[in-house]
Amino acid sequence: MMTPASLRVGIAGLGTVGAGCVRLLRKNAALIEARAGRPIVVTAVSARDRSRDRGVDLDGLRWYDDPLSLAAEREIDVVVELIGGAEGPARRLVTESLQRGRPVVTANKALIALHGGTLAAMAERAGVALAFEAAVAGGIPVIKALREGLAADRLVRIGGILNGTCNYILTAMRESGRDFATVLEEAQALGYAEADPSTDVDGIDAAHKLAILAALAFGRPVDFSSVHVEGIRRIGALDIGFATELGYRIKLLGIARRSERGVETRVHPCLVPQHSPIAQVEGVFNAVVAEGEFVGRLMLEGRGAGAGPTATAVAADLIDIARGSLVPAWGASSGALSSLTSVPMSACRGDYYLRLSVIDRPGVIAEIAGVLRDCGVSLKSMLQHGGNAADGSVPIVLVTHETAESAMQDALSRIASLDVVLDAPTMIRIEPG
Amino acid sequence: MMTPASLRVGIAGLGTVGAGCVRLLRKNAALIEARAGRPIVVTAVSARDRSRDRGVDLDGLRWYDDPLSLAAEREIDVVVELIGGAEGPARRLVTESLQRGRPVVTANKALIALHGGTLAAMAERAGVALAFEAAVAGGIPVIKALREGLAADRLVRIGGILNGTCNYILTAMRESGRDFATVLEEAQALGYAEADPSTDVDGIDAAHKLAILAALAFGRPVDFSSVHVEGIRRIGALDIGFATELGYRIKLLGIARRSERGVETRVHPCLVPQHSPIAQVEGVFNAVVAEGEFVGRLMLEGRGAGAGPTATAVAADLIDIARGSLVPAWGASSGALSSLTSVPMSACRGDYYLRLSVIDRPGVIAEIAGVLRDCGVSLKSMLQHGGNAADGSVPIVLVTHETAESAMQDALSRIASLDVVLDAPTMIRIEPG
Repeated sequence: MMTPASLRVGIAGLGTVGAGCVRLLRKNAALIEARAGRPIVVTAVSARDRSRDRGVDLDGLRWYDDPLSLAAEREIDVVVELIGGAEGPARRLVTESLQRGRPVVTANKALIALHGGTLAAMAERAGVALAFEAAVAGGIPVIKALREGLAADRLVRIGGILNGTCNYILTAMRESGRDFATVLEEAQALGYAEADPSTDVDGIDAAHKLAILAALAFGRPVDFSSVHVEGIRRIGALDIGFATELGYRIKLLGIARRSERGVETRVHPCLVPQHSPIAQVEGVFNAVVAEGEFVGRLMLEGRGAGAGPTATAVAADLIDIARGSLVPAWGASSGALSSLTSVPMSACRGDYYLRLSVIDRPGVIAEIAGVLRDCGVSLKSMLQHGGNAADGSVPIVLVTHETAESAMQDALSRIASLDVVLDAPTMIRIEPG
Repeated sequence: MMTPASLRVGIAGLGTVGAGCVRLLRKNAALIEARAGRPIVVTAVSARDRSRDRGVDLDGLRWYDDPLSLAAEREIDVVVELIGGAEGPARRLVTESLQRGRPVVTANKALIALHGGTLAAMAERAGVALAFEAAVAGGIPVIKALREGLAADRLVRIGGILNGTCNYILTAMRESGRDFATVLEEAQALGYAEADPSTDVDGIDAAHKLAILAALAFGRPVDFSSVHVEGIRRIGALDIGFATELGYRIKLLGIARRSERGVETRVHPCLVPQHSPIAQVEGVFNAVVAEGEFVGRLMLEGRGAGAGPTATAVAADLIDIARGSLVPAWGASSGALSSLTSVPMSACRGDYYLRLSVIDRPGVIAEIAGVLRDCGVSLKSMLQHGGNAADGSVPIVLVTHETAESAMQDALSRIASLDVVLDAPTMIRIEPG
């Protein structure tokens, strides 16, 4: 019997994940060969610094300073793009590789969220794979679950905890009672947050992932621009405390829902009931919740980042390619995707938590309640504790019944302009979890 | 462009799941065609009773009284076996279909657990798929997750809550304080338990599923006979109460672990810490926990049974077949499976919960503690409450430090024979969850 040919892999980007891929493909080479039906071997790499110690032996590999060289390199069968970023060398490498008929595996959520439609069409024309299991929720095989495992069902909801940095920060804030800035510093020191944390804490990373999940779940073209995005910077230690008192935990959630009106996609902090499954997902863990008409509710939980989990996702895509599996990147060919409309944030509905810092004097509550009534916002409960601050302010928390986002935004701007309201109000949406 | 040919499906067995498959494939026909790249159409069925109302229109389908006719029927491309049972018509149908080079999709966990090795070899020789996503954990795409999503990692652990009936009963016992027999009757009335509940409550169904998961996770031939199986009949209302008091919940778990010594596979009731993720999985839900060297810990949770979830799994397998994907049934070809040895139950280790009914008189504890000491079992804690029963007995609960199962079994039989011990002791293993 002829030994089947190896699948030769070129990796662009040798950061933590790139080095992790080299390590995994070597350490588990025998097991991977058994499952892929042929050996999978890294033969070429590209990274900027040749001298850096990455903890893996790179001897014998072809080394390219310019990642774009991998697209043209004849001695590789598949390109793994781990450079990152929606534009620049990552986009050029993926584009050129696909145009040359070379399959691509990438962990690049920004690239796929912003250009995934165009790139998938290129892959389709070339008849090769564009695979991105590693782009969402690291080690959780959620892309495969949506694209193949749940392919027969009509999903109505997808989302969850998609950013481990934010979940770590919110968990640590709750456990320690400390404020956002302090916990962020600690997370940076521990390597859980980047020096420039904005992509994570402003919700952009989660929004990239949500855009990808929503496209797969609902079978429509990926559309990052329609995702409403808010981050966690404005969540205060006070909010964490009030949430606990009210029986909730605060999580940054990505939420995509399909209704008769279309698809809503949004990333923002949420209060979720503290006994709901999603509330139990703590620290750097990710969790994806899917709900379908036939399958009901599913939750997939695991490590969303890190060299090991992300490398398993990259290698799983490589095994699929080695096996000859070829599933369209978005689960159906470009022509077969639906054109569900996007529902704007202003048309969403829900319950709301509102924390205000007000002057502690008679009539204040009546004034605020009057504004809410005028905007058609109905109150469910209110929390106020004695002990006011040195400046005479006192925090109050209001929880509403189901309200239209537009009505809430109207009420918010009117409340913010009241003399008795001292700081900008903090509004957090309440989700069933 | 030529319209691609339909994938013609013959379904054997039109119970809840069979009717659910017909309904799903019709209701979501357009979506399934987009994702499969071609229509998937049921053209033939086989069931005993033609007159029964199944809530789906069966007009125009070829009807066979003998399921075996589907194996020979020329107008179908794939056989879906939903008859059930490890032997008889189900086994004959699957065997003959594969021998005739026809792909098979089945939800039959008993068949796959007992004969999955032989059947996979037949499928391999014929170059066709043998797919069984629906055999384990219903709507949770765990077979695909293990066989493809985690294919690059070396797993060290797989298992979880694999039987919804048992989980429903244990959850209801805890919530209501009632005993096993009463709750079982209620579950039967609600349709959550069969008239003959033994396959579920004696742990056999969970053991079938665990055998399948362990084979996939560890890349070795499926081996049902080496699974240690205990059910939940012996769990009393007293145990549920004591477990809660000790900070645990009682779950029927399937546990498969790989160590240097080999693979242990066991199904039995467990005490798990009440705040562990697996303890939160309640009612009819299933949850599968996987742990790998690179990927870390994953948990997949969802509906483990029912027409809708199971039908989505069957249809996902059909979509894979329609797309032309062909992954070996056990993740690697028969020749590439490993031969890890099985570790017998007696060689397992863990902490133990032990409930005894003893005569309430001085010296009893000392006597029991003496036996444990002689067997090398070290005690961690003990619970005893006042109020003894009319017969003068009193329940005591002992919790051990880590102990070898063999030592525990030795101690158990010696304790059972003591005059001061009235009923058979109840032993429940403690797992980290």
